Amino acid sequence: MEKGLVKPKPKTKLKDVAKATGFSENTVSLALRGSPRLPESTRDLILRAAEELNYFPNHIARSLANNATRTIGLVLTDIMNPTLTLAARTIERELTKAGYGMMFAASDTSVESEKRALLRFQSYQVDGILVYPAHHRKFDHIVAVAEAGTPVLLLAELRGSGLDTVAIDDMAGAYKVACHLLGLGHRRIAMLDGGFMSGNDDKRRGIRRAIRQAGLPANTLIVHNAKGTSATQGYRMMPAVMADPNKPTALVASTDALATGALRWCGENGISVPGQMAIAGYDNTEVSEFSVLPLTTVNYAADEISRIGVARILHRLENKEARLPAETQLIEPELIVRATT
Amino acid sequence: MEKGLVKPKPKTKLKDVAKATGFSENTVSLALRGSPRLPESTRDLILRAAEELNYFPNHIARSLANNATRTIGLVLTDIMNPTLTLAARTIERELTKAGYGMMFAASDTSVESEKRALLRFQSYQVDGILVYPAHHRKFDHIVAVAEAGTPVLLLAELRGSGLDTVAIDDMAGAYKVACHLLGLGHRRIAMLDGGFMSGNDDKRRGIRRAIRQAGLPANTLIVHNAKGTSATQGYRMMPAVMADPNKPTALVASTDALATGALRWCGENGISVPGQMAIAGYDNTEVSEFSVLPLTTVNYAADEISRIGVARILHRLENKEARLPAETQLIEPELIVRATT
Repeated sequence: MEKGLVKPKPKTKLKDVAKATGFSENTVSLALRGSPRLPESTRDLILRAAEELNYFPNHIARSLANNATRTIGLVLTDIMNPTLTLAARTIERELTKAGYGMMFAASDTSVESEKRALLRFQSYQVDGILVYPAHHRKFDHIVAVAEAGTPVLLLAELRGSGLDTVAIDDMAGAYKVACHLLGLGHRRIAMLDGGFMSGNDDKRRGIRRAIRQAGLPANTLIVHNAKGTSATQGYRMMPAVMADPNKPTALVASTDALATGALRWCGENGISVPGQMAIAGYDNTEVSEFSVLPLTTVNYAADEISRIGVARILHRLENKEARLPAETQLIEPELIVRATT
Repeated sequence: MEKGLVKPKPKTKLKDVAKATGFSENTVSLALRGSPRLPESTRDLILRAAEELNYFPNHIARSLANNATRTIGLVLTDIMNPTLTLAARTIERELTKAGYGMMFAASDTSVESEKRALLRFQSYQVDGILVYPAHHRKFDHIVAVAEAGTPVLLLAELRGSGLDTVAIDDMAGAYKVACHLLGLGHRRIAMLDGGFMSGNDDKRRGIRRAIRQAGLPANTLIVHNAKGTSATQGYRMMPAVMADPNKPTALVASTDALATGALRWCGENGISVPGQMAIAGYDNTEVSEFSVLPLTTVNYAADEISRIGVARILHRLENKEARLPAETQLIEPELIVRATT
């Protein structure tokens, strides 16, 4: 019953696995890194043999020799936000496929935590870092990491950072929601904005642009700081939204979770949706389809930007001498109209 | 615009940070590892100075010297399962507090993927590994990792593994749900079981125990293999559940997400809940409170077992010579009765 404390057995070497399987050391090495260049049956056979022989490579010694750890760090704000959960899952899958490991840290939308996570990743000598930034205006420390030599790729845009970026165009997404609501005749729109904490005003700007283009006054939009992005927070904010004597007829929530909480509150307080109040979410998480009423929302393609982002940073790593210029790629999200508007 | 490729500046050393702040090298080292033994103001001051000086320790060189990487690996089945998302968040937080980094891998409930993830973690020389196992009966490869010298802690029970375990007692949780439904007079109970894929039958066994104790026949329970744990899957399974000529009056879903999908299906098909069909979930995720009707569910305290699990594995690491015997600690979850039963 003391399995954790048994002394290690004598170490098996790469050539022992090669000998046992009849493959070359190079093929064995590729298999152990999960390379897609080998047929799956070969990979499985070698992995099984490696396991039976209790072989595992000393990654640290190899790191010193290669000056590469084949590890990528991911720092994001909050893994409980379903779009970021999906991003983390996709990134881990893509890295595993490419034979890389993933270090993970959450900043809880705190710039100080983010700084510490980046420092930790640097000390672990990760080959590159993917970042969902904690704050949209405080990012000098992220730029400093790139300047110190560790490639960094952002998964949300930080204007003026000059860093590699693959992100959803939130301004375009919110603009589409607003055009949809204005087209339905809404002239008093409330917004539950979970972006205040992180200084992210792209969604607000997208809505304002639609209002301006429609020739409507700025006070068509009433913005509420949602102080979070969860359903609980959306539920709690609704009394403030409805306290406005000039009641809104539509609500844009900056996350599906916030919208779900708002929907529940309307249900409990006898406000019909979309009759008395149209509600739109943002993200297209599973909850948007399975909430009280299927939610109108914007498809935040976290999986798509994650895949492109991983491909980009690995390409950069594997072309060290190419001096690739930093690039910003913004992906325009789709509006999905369902039952709440 | 080529931030990722700027040449590294000359390396700052630990003693430079000590000199700049006036603290000893030992204090600086503690601060950089995020030690709670220092006041937060001291830690922040040192971290800020380290950042300004662009200091980061070479973790790999230190690993070779210390024979410890201060990294823990976490392998779980599916980060999209909200209870596991919460577990990952809690584990990352607790490890960060203790000055450890976290490597992360998902097995997608595949034993082969789990094996590869464990192999990767071993090659990275992690100090210990936390595991949400992919399968409840195929676990020899996990035992092998512990036997090879890397401490392993399980976050779900694997009977007969002899490994350190901190887990929720799912048999007790499901038993409580079943007693509640039987107490309400239900005599025909359907179960959507997402545990088939992973060979986990604790929840089924808990329900069967309650049925036996009530002196009812075994066919009181009709089990359906849910082929997944998502809301979409719960929604898709309902026609099969309702096709039974001897219709069930109550449904136990093995996750809240499955229950949410079932609820949506009942809503769309004019089946009143809980009047014609009582529905209970499992996990107490946020969605259970914000679904069409607030769900009766079992509180799967993923945060609690994560905290205890991290404390246990770190204690084991820091008492290497103590030959601590493996221990299994099961936590009995609470039933939360809401509107669906």
